[in-house]
Amino acid sequence: MHPLAERVLQKDVRAVARAMRLVDDRDPGHTDVLRDLFPHTGRAHVVGVTGNPGAGKSTLSDRLIEGFRKAGKIVGVIAVDPTSPYTGGAILGDRIRMQRHAVDPGVFIRSVATRGHLGGLSRSARDMVRILDAWGADVVLVETVGVGQDELEVTRTAHTTLVVMAPGMGDEVQAIKAGIMESADVFAVNKADRDGADGTVRDIELMIALGGETMMAASKHRGHVVHGGAGEAAAHGVGGDETTPERWVPPIVRAVATRGEGTAELVAAVERHRVWLEGTATGRARRKQRLGEEVREALREALIEAASHDLAAQMDQAVIDVDERRVDPYTAIEQLRDAFRAGRSA
Amino acid sequence: MHPLAERVLQKDVRAVARAMRLVDDRDPGHTDVLRDLFPHTGRAHVVGVTGNPGAGKSTLSDRLIEGFRKAGKIVGVIAVDPTSPYTGGAILGDRIRMQRHAVDPGVFIRSVATRGHLGGLSRSARDMVRILDAWGADVVLVETVGVGQDELEVTRTAHTTLVVMAPGMGDEVQAIKAGIMESADVFAVNKADRDGADGTVRDIELMIALGGETMMAASKHRGHVVHGGAGEAAAHGVGGDETTPERWVPPIVRAVATRGEGTAELVAAVERHRVWLEGTATGRARRKQRLGEEVREALREALIEAASHDLAAQMDQAVIDVDERRVDPYTAIEQLRDAFRAGRSA
Repeated sequence: MHPLAERVLQKDVRAVARAMRLVDDRDPGHTDVLRDLFPHTGRAHVVGVTGNPGAGKSTLSDRLIEGFRKAGKIVGVIAVDPTSPYTGGAILGDRIRMQRHAVDPGVFIRSVATRGHLGGLSRSARDMVRILDAWGADVVLVETVGVGQDELEVTRTAHTTLVVMAPGMGDEVQAIKAGIMESADVFAVNKADRDGADGTVRDIELMIALGGETMMAASKHRGHVVHGGAGEAAAHGVGGDETTPERWVPPIVRAVATRGEGTAELVAAVERHRVWLEGTATGRARRKQRLGEEVREALREALIEAASHDLAAQMDQAVIDVDERRVDPYTAIEQLRDAFRAGRSA
Repeated sequence: MHPLAERVLQKDVRAVARAMRLVDDRDPGHTDVLRDLFPHTGRAHVVGVTGNPGAGKSTLSDRLIEGFRKAGKIVGVIAVDPTSPYTGGAILGDRIRMQRHAVDPGVFIRSVATRGHLGGLSRSARDMVRILDAWGADVVLVETVGVGQDELEVTRTAHTTLVVMAPGMGDEVQAIKAGIMESADVFAVNKADRDGADGTVRDIELMIALGGETMMAASKHRGHVVHGGAGEAAAHGVGGDETTPERWVPPIVRAVATRGEGTAELVAAVERHRVWLEGTATGRARRKQRLGEEVREALREALIEAASHDLAAQMDQAVIDVDERRVDPYTAIEQLRDAFRAGRSA
């Protein structure tokens, strides 16, 4: 076993930090460490926390750490920041509040300022989650900065996605645009003491009702059937209490994170979702589906990496040929694909 | 030749619309049409127009169409909207202004509300650009809604990227975050009659100066050397006039799109960039590099598609094995990759 992996399993936090750095740098040795840790993973519940900047996500995450700690859980936190090196510092600064937990040996917090190249961010996040899982985390929070495509990708690594909104921010439209609605498992309406909180809750309820059919269609498309569609939901009325073994209806929890209100309810909602995932066929199918997406995504990267290595010369030539219109790109791609598959390379 | 391709080449706009629909729907026949059209492409200059909502991008695009038409150019426009079906209509509504050009036979406008799955958007945009190119467009504007990861991806399909900003919107930080700065070839400061326009121009100048080194590093990393770095730029002072055959310094153009001010200057700046791209070794290397990215991206998709087909059963089994911790995902991926490469599949 890799000595670093051994030290992670012995709960050495410095080894955890070092293993994470290896992953972040894509250091050649990082896969060996991950390989050795993998058999010791699978226990942690991964909670994605997303929502627009300004919704109070960091304060809420801070409260969640507190809440999970009170429940006796070991907590890992990965604060993902898909940003340029220029502003990295400034944004991470917002999260300083969380650092008060850094002295607690039952909490490990790591900020990742990985530049947002496609795929890379979710891969790093996934690998870091595994390190925390092997270290002994019961819960891993993966917090993102905004609600863009990168964030959506990162939420796919989570078992439970918590979407944080606040009154009067017009978050809803942005969330819909980014496709976050469909991946939300729990909604937090933060700053719930402000005017407009009722309206925000109603908007979310409406979106859940409207989204029922779409979510169903998306689930079916991914190959498993979800019973109880939009029609049924409408007939029963929409709330947080229509969850069945076949269908999870996202609960909406009001919170005032600055005062710690709603924390216990959020922790309970996340916990209910975990139980649902583990205890129902639909939930287990969803877990497996996410793992399937990971395998597919990782295989895509592994294939292009191998092809770039094996077919470097052919790929360069293809670019020249396409550039000079000697071949169309569609045919060129087919030829490269077939050459790779047939092992017709140096 | 596919009858639809033939009609596109005969400048039949209904055929153009139909071919675009095929691409948007990923209809089985769309590749045949694109294959036949490809030898007739390569003439159009592709201009990406990006920037935050509210910067006046649509109004500016409308003016650009006008400006290019005055210069006698045939203009194609692809308005990309990486959004959910829910809001598609609302956002596209902003662009109604542009539709006044729809009666002009020298202008073809198409809105694409393709859902933002990774890679799909830039592929669709690229294919649609080729249809407009084959149809006879001299210039194709590809306009995006915001400045996220999707938009960044789409700008990679453009020869020239125009970034639109406006005073007092704090766009700069968002643009930096999204990595847009590094891909900007021309800046438009719209609403330049407002307070703060001078400040916005100065901010952009500063970012260009600061970014010189980063941009250089990025270019070198991609395999071609750019002479004249940040040090040199600083010594000469930064402006729009330090462009050399080896280095393009993005000009900053002030505009008031609502009154049509600055349009001619913007058209001229885009045109200068086209001439630079075509007339210099660095420019040609950049074109080829973008084509290389396309080939790589398309090959990645083609490989995973073929692997998903050939290895469907093995991939399903790998997911089960990983889920049950019988194998780690890193080893499983290596096995799948090697099986695909060796043709060890049904």
